[in-house]
Amino acid sequence: MTLFAVVGHTARTDGSFSINDLPGSGGRMDVLCRCVNASLFLSHELRRDVDCCLILCGEPAGPKTIRFSGSSVRSLSPDERSAAALIKKVIDTPCGSTFREAAPGVFIRKGGLEQIIAEHAFAVLDENGTDIRTAADFPAAFLLSDHLNFTEQEEGLIRDSPRFSVGPRCLHADHTITLVNNELDRRACAWR
Amino acid sequence: MTLFAVVGHTARTDGSFSINDLPGSGGRMDVLCRCVNASLFLSHELRRDVDCCLILCGEPAGPKTIRFSGSSVRSLSPDERSAAALIKKVIDTPCGSTFREAAPGVFIRKGGLEQIIAEHAFAVLDENGTDIRTAADFPAAFLLSDHLNFTEQEEGLIRDSPRFSVGPRCLHADHTITLVNNELDRRACAWR
Repeated sequence: MTLFAVVGHTARTDGSFSINDLPGSGGRMDVLCRCVNASLFLSHELRRDVDCCLILCGEPAGPKTIRFSGSSVRSLSPDERSAAALIKKVIDTPCGSTFREAAPGVFIRKGGLEQIIAEHAFAVLDENGTDIRTAADFPAAFLLSDHLNFTEQEEGLIRDSPRFSVGPRCLHADHTITLVNNELDRRACAWR
Repeated sequence: MTLFAVVGHTARTDGSFSINDLPGSGGRMDVLCRCVNASLFLSHELRRDVDCCLILCGEPAGPKTIRFSGSSVRSLSPDERSAAALIKKVIDTPCGSTFREAAPGVFIRKGGLEQIIAEHAFAVLDENGTDIRTAADFPAAFLLSDHLNFTEQEEGLIRDSPRFSVGPRCLHADHTITLVNNELDRRACAWR
C-alpha cells in the first residue's frame, strides 16, 4: 500500500468553507483536493492500493487529518468539488486521536504531522532530493507540502527522512504525486 | 514552444454551463480545466513556453477551439473554476476560423481537430505508443483525448501520427500531460 500525505498549512478545519471558493474560504483546499485526485485516480478506476492523507493545519480547529482510502472510498469523482464535498461532509465529525470512518472510505482524526510521522517511514518529496528514477528503492509513504514550504518546526520533525525529487523544476504537489505514481507503476510492471 | 491539444468530445460550446457543475452541465469541462492546469502551471509560475488548446466538440455550437497561451495568459489560477471562468468568458465571443484573442492570452476560433492537425505535426498520447522515456525525439505538439477514446473518424485523421505512451497504466489526460512536461523538463535541463 502506498500512502501520500500532504500538509495543508492554511486548510480550513471546520465545514464553514464554501465549495465555490476552495482557494479562499477553504485556505487553499483546492490544492489538497487535486492531491486526492492525483493519488487515487486511474483513467476509469481508482488506485485501490493507495491512500491519501490530508493534514489540515488551518483555523479554527487544527490540526486534523483526513484519510481517503483508495480501497474503500465511494462517491468520489475526479473534479475538485467532489473531493471537497467529501471533506466538508466529514470535517466536523467528532473524533479523537484515532481515525474514525465518517463517510465510506474517508476517515478523520485530530492530530497532524507529528502523529503521522510517528506511524510511517516517510520519503519527503523535495526538489533537492535524490532523483526518483535513479533511486534503488523508496519507502511506501511519501510526504509533501502544499503551496507553502515546510515550516521550520516541520523541517525539524522530518530532518532525518530521505528526500526524493521528481525532476528539475519546482512543481505543484499534485503533479509531484502523479510523477511518483508513474514511477511506482513502471517498477511494479517492470515496464520496458 | 510545446503545445498540448485535448479533444473534449462532450464539452459545451456555449456559455450556458454552470461553473458549479463542470462535469454535468459543462460536458466534462472539468477534464479540460485540469488539462489547462497540467499544461501551464509550475509551482509558483506559469510555463511561458507552453500552450494548451481545448477542442470543444459538444452542443450546441461545436466544434470550437480555445487556446490558452502560457506566454500571455493572465488571471489564471490553478483551480478548475479559474480555467472554467476564462472559458465561460470567451466561449460566446463571435469568431471565425482564425484565432481571436477574447481575454488576455486566451484565444478562440471555430473548428476542431481537422483544422488543428493541418497546422501541427502531433504526437498522439496513447497507452500503446512508444515509451516517452526511451523515445529519441518527439514532435513539439501532443494530442490527447478526454475521458473518452478518439472516435473512429478522429482515428482516421490521426492514423499516420506517431504514438507515445507515458507508462503501463491508463491515465487521465491531465496526468499524462504532467508526465510529458516532466520528460521535456528533464531533457531540457539534461537532468541527472
